[in-house]
Amino acid sequence: MNAVPATMRASVLLEKQRIELQERPVPRPGPGEVLIQVRSVGVCGSDVHYYKEGRIGHHIVEQPLILGHEVSGVIVDVGAGVPEDRVGERVAVEPQRPCRRCRFCKTGRQNLCERMEFYATPPIDGTFCDYVVAPADFAHLVPDAMSDHAAALLEPFSVGIWACTKARVGLGSKVFITGAGPIGALTSLAARSFGAAEIIVTDLVESRRNRILEFGATAAFDPRDADFDAAALAADAFIECSGATPAVLSGIDALAPGGVAVLVGLGAEEMALPVQRIMMKEISLTGVFRYVDTWPKAIAAAQQPATNLDDLVTAEFDLEDSEAALNSDADPASMKSIVVVSRG
Amino acid sequence: MNAVPATMRASVLLEKQRIELQERPVPRPGPGEVLIQVRSVGVCGSDVHYYKEGRIGHHIVEQPLILGHEVSGVIVDVGAGVPEDRVGERVAVEPQRPCRRCRFCKTGRQNLCERMEFYATPPIDGTFCDYVVAPADFAHLVPDAMSDHAAALLEPFSVGIWACTKARVGLGSKVFITGAGPIGALTSLAARSFGAAEIIVTDLVESRRNRILEFGATAAFDPRDADFDAAALAADAFIECSGATPAVLSGIDALAPGGVAVLVGLGAEEMALPVQRIMMKEISLTGVFRYVDTWPKAIAAAQQPATNLDDLVTAEFDLEDSEAALNSDADPASMKSIVVVSRG
Amino acid sequence: MNAVPATMRASVLLEKQRIELQERPVPRPGPGEVLIQVRSVGVCGSDVHYYKEGRIGHHIVEQPLILGHEVSGVIVDVGAGVPEDRVGERVAVEPQRPCRRCRFCKTGRQNLCERMEFYATPPIDGTFCDYVVAPADFAHLVPDAMSDHAAALLEPFSVGIWACTKARVGLGSKVFITGAGPIGALTSLAARSFGAAEIIVTDLVESRRNRILEFGATAAFDPRDADFDAAALAADAFIECSGATPAVLSGIDALAPGGVAVLVGLGAEEMALPVQRIMMKEISLTGVFRYVDTWPKAIAAAQQPATNLDDLVTAEFDLEDSEAALNSDADPASMKSIVVVSRG
Amino acid sequence: MNAVPATMRASVLLEKQRIELQERPVPRPGPGEVLIQVRSVGVCGSDVHYYKEGRIGHHIVEQPLILGHEVSGVIVDVGAGVPEDRVGERVAVEPQRPCRRCRFCKTGRQNLCERMEFYATPPIDGTFCDYVVAPADFAHLVPDAMSDHAAALLEPFSVGIWACTKARVGLGSKVFITGAGPIGALTSLAARSFGAAEIIVTDLVESRRNRILEFGATAAFDPRDADFDAAALAADAFIECSGATPAVLSGIDALAPGGVAVLVGLGAEEMALPVQRIMMKEISLTGVFRYVDTWPKAIAAAQQPATNLDDLVTAEFDLEDSEAALNSDADPASMKSIVVVSRG
Repeated sequence: MNAVPATMRASVLLEKQRIELQERPVPRPGPGEVLIQVRSVGVCGSDVHYYKEGRIGHHIVEQPLILGHEVSGVIVDVGAGVPEDRVGERVAVEPQRPCRRCRFCKTGRQNLCERMEFYATPPIDGTFCDYVVAPADFAHLVPDAMSDHAAALLEPFSVGIWACTKARVGLGSKVFITGAGPIGALTSLAARSFGAAEIIVTDLVESRRNRILEFGATAAFDPRDADFDAAALAADAFIECSGATPAVLSGIDALAPGGVAVLVGLGAEEMALPVQRIMMKEISLTGVFRYVDTWPKAIAAAQQPATNLDDLVTAEFDLEDSEAALNSDADPASMKSIVVVSRG
Repeated sequence: MNAVPATMRASVLLEKQRIELQERPVPRPGPGEVLIQVRSVGVCGSDVHYYKEGRIGHHIVEQPLILGHEVSGVIVDVGAGVPEDRVGERVAVEPQRPCRRCRFCKTGRQNLCERMEFYATPPIDGTFCDYVVAPADFAHLVPDAMSDHAAALLEPFSVGIWACTKARVGLGSKVFITGAGPIGALTSLAARSFGAAEIIVTDLVESRRNRILEFGATAAFDPRDADFDAAALAADAFIECSGATPAVLSGIDALAPGGVAVLVGLGAEEMALPVQRIMMKEISLTGVFRYVDTWPKAIAAAQQPATNLDDLVTAEFDLEDSEAALNSDADPASMKSIVVVSRG
Repeated sequence: MNAVPATMRASVLLEKQRIELQERPVPRPGPGEVLIQVRSVGVCGSDVHYYKEGRIGHHIVEQPLILGHEVSGVIVDVGAGVPEDRVGERVAVEPQRPCRRCRFCKTGRQNLCERMEFYATPPIDGTFCDYVVAPADFAHLVPDAMSDHAAALLEPFSVGIWACTKARVGLGSKVFITGAGPIGALTSLAARSFGAAEIIVTDLVESRRNRILEFGATAAFDPRDADFDAAALAADAFIECSGATPAVLSGIDALAPGGVAVLVGLGAEEMALPVQRIMMKEISLTGVFRYVDTWPKAIAAAQQPATNLDDLVTAEFDLEDSEAALNSDADPASMKSIVVVSRG
Repeated sequence: MNAVPATMRASVLLEKQRIELQERPVPRPGPGEVLIQVRSVGVCGSDVHYYKEGRIGHHIVEQPLILGHEVSGVIVDVGAGVPEDRVGERVAVEPQRPCRRCRFCKTGRQNLCERMEFYATPPIDGTFCDYVVAPADFAHLVPDAMSDHAAALLEPFSVGIWACTKARVGLGSKVFITGAGPIGALTSLAARSFGAAEIIVTDLVESRRNRILEFGATAAFDPRDADFDAAALAADAFIECSGATPAVLSGIDALAPGGVAVLVGLGAEEMALPVQRIMMKEISLTGVFRYVDTWPKAIAAAQQPATNLDDLVTAEFDLEDSEAALNSDADPASMKSIVVVSRG
């Protein structure tokens, strides 16, 4: 283990569309925390949104902010109360820090904690830097066979796992997914890992429809195609990963009575929804916000034979080039860009 | 037991706003069925809707239809396979006849059966008549202490019970109900029977707000009152019983993260809903459509000390006056009208 | 489609250890039923038990009984109310006929129906014969790619699926199974289909330990091996498939706090169980009795890439040789014998 | 608020059957903690067991130990991070301190935390003393109308609430309880608060059978009475509160198929249980160990009209007389003794 230096590189968002590489002090792990040397960081749509707009809803970048929250690395130091022998562990880091004391935290719903701190959500710094601290219990040991990139992608995979959990996807489920981007693909993989029998995906972009067939989908359609009839699907679960209002409506049509609709893609603040249909079919409509206890499941799913998180990576960037990474998703062929902070 | 006559009176909706008292043959109970001499029939908003509009959505009155589906009575004959000793039982009748063979029926979701037959839903006749048949297992024995009126009201009470079930109301729950009409009142009673600690109700009509405090509500507000702040409630469950779009929106505001919104009141086909808020708070939005296994629970709840279904009855009508009964809810002071077909 | 003959062959258990091939009338499908020409019938331990002992518990063979209940075939006729076009369907048959009217049936727990009729449970005849009738909704269409043998094995596979359901096996679960016979193997396959990450199996017989590694198990141990420490497993779920009392005890030891123990193998009527340990760890102990809605899941699971029901078949017998089939499990190398009544 | 003194009285168990009143330093609240001036402390069977035997299972009193864990009091000081305005709150104290970091804690199962610290479980001191500290989130504000005694009894009431939760008691449930001592009575009250329709209790002692009818039970029987037939009950839930093996067996008999048995009373380490019956009826057998999130529910239940926790108190003792309190349950008429440390 190398000695931990006093300072480190950090890619800092100064204001919208302005990133600067700065030298920052390396953080020290507090009690119950670990210090992690960062390896791979995935670029998420929310990072891009903060970069381009300077805000997401009421979360506003008012002071310099380090972006990045899909992260893997190696534990290089531990705080009080954490076993020394965790140093050297290769870990995937859960980016959330719930308060652990509110009623949500104590009843298995920490994702709803109202005092949550979360990497790269203002004013909490993220992981586009050499070192980060995390609570020891949120730094999950990853198997040797899993790459650093895949370990970082356990975070967006967790979104798919949580979406499938909320959608009650299980053995034999018929799942309808709208949107074949990275979250759609990871949700499709997640659905398969839960035992879904049919995974039908729609996307406007042909290349994405083709590619998602490699990520667990059993069929992919252009929603504008006259041959495609969502209402005929009678799906058990609908998971919306595009943010598009017409996709939401098609998904509600696609559900069998008693089905569950889960909104993942961020779209309009308000949508005109067919409430009578929701009532008559006793459909449940909900969304996902973070996740609970998904890393163990994501690690299990990632080890299933046909799951291939690495194949989702379409580009790598150095930390110095994180601005380019943030711009890389303009290319429709892009699925997931990785900022490589260090290599193992 | 009197002999069953060959013919009976039936109040028949010929077309919208045209009711006629006819003589009809008394039905015969088939295998597994019972014949019931009708006692009390509650007037439901759906009866009124068929009477006034001739349709509800795609359910259209295209041939003469007997209305009424909130019904109690006495078993006077049994079909093949039903024990003779059920004759004489005073029963509350569940108005639904699921197919019993589809996947919904076999997995505890008979309410979603796509081949459901239901009293007073075209073309199935209802219960504004002297005798009806029902499957023996849907004719529930009622306790001696329960009145015929209360036994009939187990049907709308079941709606409230099912709404509370879907809303996961339980011991200590904080429940927000919009609409203090008969369904709001029965839902409030149901919520208390499940152990809810706080039941907050809104209604525009002062007399209804006052009255609902006798039906389990712990507080009642005018939603237009400046002092009332739905968003401050942090309710566990929201049950919408008014059909009003602003009520739906206030209820979504009123929910704590992870809360459940259940739509009961029939309103607009579409509503503009705050989907981002639903997502960020992981709210579940659903509706109720009929009910499953609610009569035993409703009977149990009706026997709790403070439950007083009879107090909901604001008017009685003879079968000959069923048209007047259908018009009686124009009076805002009306809660529940009962058509008294016979008396015990 | 060939014409259905008037009589058929049936292998009849006259009394314990006495089987006779008889000529019997072909049954006629009643309303809602289908007539099935039998293809493959798996030999189950319960068939063997009736053959050898003449009884299972209080179920006693008091009149001639046709054994067999793991069955596939082809629909050759339909009763009233069943679409004609089902004739020709290749089906797997669910052997149970619940009453559809009791509270268990109506709340998704038909397996607990107290008026259940079940193939080859006295006095209801089973399927070691050319033709059987079944309720149309219990004759499940199987995919073209599934063999007749595999379709028959969906019945014991359903036992494994139901056991995993009761044990709450899911993505990432650690499952401990005792007994690597046919039910252990099918439960292991089922656990994998639900996404279990670790499936640890014990059996006394080395050849069975080796073979179960081909049926989903990730590790197999001799429970007498000093290296094997059940208490160190901290499993989420324990599924007992041997009937041996020491296996039950080892499984309770193997569970993490909050774990679920599911008893499948029939053993002693009473066992001395460590109730304080069950309490202190809040373990849930239960069993399985038949199944609910498992065929669709079993069909889905059987189509997953690594699932190979056919590999379980170790011997085939003609209907004339069904007595030999019933004796075949004396060989410890036997996993599943099939009586081939007809071939497609 | 009075100034907090430097030392306090503490009733200390030196070794089995030897209690001494000592002067001890008043503890200081750490970060996130509150200091509570103790008011009422209920005497629990476990306190009595430690006093009489010096151990419970593998928990051994090896150094002086303060007993007591059913406790109410007033917050007199707060640690870092706790709002000052909590000083003065009258609270009921949850005696458990889970680690908040293990997987159990993070998935809503903190009661199973393997690093749990618990008042009066060696070597953690309890509450037979003037002041105790507790995590702020485990000190629950109680309503003005609730007495200090009742607030202390929220702890054993929580046991009943948790038992009913595990037993899935709900509106209309039929519940069978064995044992009409304090836990039986509190479980009976809890069952009623969840909406149970029938609560049938057995006890060998007539006076206890009579008294439990005031605590929610709808019927009470002597289990030796020839007229009492447990097997005829067909209960939904069985909650064992006596620790007697015959009671466990009668309860398993009493359950309907699919019923749940929950063991609360501590009895023999092992019991011979009818496992085939458990399997054939798909009964679930489990136990309770501590509780999760029960105080809010217990407070709600305690405010229901017919709930009367105070009526359970059969004797009061000064802190100086805590040894007498520990001996007081030898009297069969004793239900709950309270050590009054201070009064409001």
